[in-house]
Amino acid sequence: MNIFVIGIGLIGGSFVKDVRAKMSAAKIYGIDANAAHVAQALSLGLIDEKATYEDLHLAEFVMVSVPVDVMLQELPKILDKVSDECVVCDAGSTKELLCAALEEHPKRRNFLACHPIAGTEFSGPSAAINGLYHGKTNIICEIEKTAFTLQERALEIFQLLGMRIRYMNPKAHDKHIAYVSHLSHISSFMLGKTVIEKEKNERDIFDMAGSGFESTVRLAKSSPAMWTPIFKQNKENVVETLEEYIQNLSEFKEMLLKDDYEGIYDQMNNTNKIKVILKGMPVSKMVAKEKN
Amino acid sequence: MNIFVIGIGLIGGSFVKDVRAKMSAAKIYGIDANAAHVAQALSLGLIDEKATYEDLHLAEFVMVSVPVDVMLQELPKILDKVSDECVVCDAGSTKELLCAALEEHPKRRNFLACHPIAGTEFSGPSAAINGLYHGKTNIICEIEKTAFTLQERALEIFQLLGMRIRYMNPKAHDKHIAYVSHLSHISSFMLGKTVIEKEKNERDIFDMAGSGFESTVRLAKSSPAMWTPIFKQNKENVVETLEEYIQNLSEFKEMLLKDDYEGIYDQMNNTNKIKVILKGMPVSKMVAKEKN
Repeated sequence: MNIFVIGIGLIGGSFVKDVRAKMSAAKIYGIDANAAHVAQALSLGLIDEKATYEDLHLAEFVMVSVPVDVMLQELPKILDKVSDECVVCDAGSTKELLCAALEEHPKRRNFLACHPIAGTEFSGPSAAINGLYHGKTNIICEIEKTAFTLQERALEIFQLLGMRIRYMNPKAHDKHIAYVSHLSHISSFMLGKTVIEKEKNERDIFDMAGSGFESTVRLAKSSPAMWTPIFKQNKENVVETLEEYIQNLSEFKEMLLKDDYEGIYDQMNNTNKIKVILKGMPVSKMVAKEKN
Repeated sequence: MNIFVIGIGLIGGSFVKDVRAKMSAAKIYGIDANAAHVAQALSLGLIDEKATYEDLHLAEFVMVSVPVDVMLQELPKILDKVSDECVVCDAGSTKELLCAALEEHPKRRNFLACHPIAGTEFSGPSAAINGLYHGKTNIICEIEKTAFTLQERALEIFQLLGMRIRYMNPKAHDKHIAYVSHLSHISSFMLGKTVIEKEKNERDIFDMAGSGFESTVRLAKSSPAMWTPIFKQNKENVVETLEEYIQNLSEFKEMLLKDDYEGIYDQMNNTNKIKVILKGMPVSKMVAKEKN
């Protein structure tokens, strides 16, 4: 199968790494606006060949993993170039604007709107890792708008990579993901900012920060080029989550000021149930390992 | 050496686990208000014998790892019971109130105020793990108030366990630790609360949450019984960090509302330097592993 990856960073690179491991007959073409990334992807063996949009007629499967602002601009052009028998998937963290933008595209049936919930705080081809998608959820939106045989082809590949599939409409996707992903990133970035501002002498952070701080601030290492357009496209939902988060933090502060330690205890105790909620998560193996 | 551990949970239990591994001749006595914890510690082989305060005259080294409110109440009594040749260390996350409370104690020279920056979100004797303290920082306050030979004994044990030592006054400790530890816990608890409130259908969190959310919300699994008295004792510093954190989050929200994406990009880009700051941290091995 001729597989194209457009945008060969952590997401696209990890995707083709696993595809190559599971589909020995796949030929992998790479397209990236950044020539250094293409060269790196070739030397890392992530792709077999450098390609351009003019080669897209050869594609049977295309994974587009570029920042969501670039996605809006490039996906219509990519769809214009592929054959009727090709399925084009994206991996963007927002779905509403993209699905709306492609609604009337003549090749809408060739597009499958996806969001594999997987990643690390690193970026670029060298950040690509094996097994990134194994056991992770891939949210698919508007499945009914994709041609049936093309749905099948994409789902077979996702299954080979060990992904769990969940179907959702774009509006619900963007709303929920604001809570479980976008807000986490902002809380982490602002935590990093608050601490850096205070601790002018970085040596103090270095010496006193434990693994608790490190895990909470991990997402603050993420790429601003990737996250700025996500926050822009999901502005309305993100603002809502931020308002609720700020409200909860302010209430916590008020309880402290009023010496309401019973209230503080209760809030933490109630939130402890996140343990049970997360227990079933496939990714929680990571934390369990840490315990041993 | 007769070693006593008072409060046999994650911190105390992990401590004696390593002590036993490194000091084969050590005899380990355990004291805990919770009889079930003592029984569990015995069956897990964390301690050799159950003990009471009446046995403390036998102790040569005592590690007190109880919630910081219990610490204030129990440490004077513990010091009353130990011999002049015994060193008593604590492992509490606040130092100012404790050091002030013990300032005039007749056995002040037997006390060494410590804060090993190590832990996980789990608690109880079964949460005890090997090597928890290896490569971690142990902050020692008011070292000059401890008898020299007793300092030496404690430092030898800390060295055996692979801890790095850093000296600080109690006021500076409480101020810095509010930023790099206490604030992380509140940001995580409130993130968990915000998401749980919104996602009444827990299935949605379960399916959509990725490892990013999981690491950011990890500390929300922590024990309220341990953390409530920490926030109480460090109220003034914690309120200050919360105010700055809320301020940064509000500014971020305002930038979103004003469509100032350049400003948002810059803030994230500036905060990315947390990568470099954390790189030198010994605990960052955990995250590096995840990358491979």
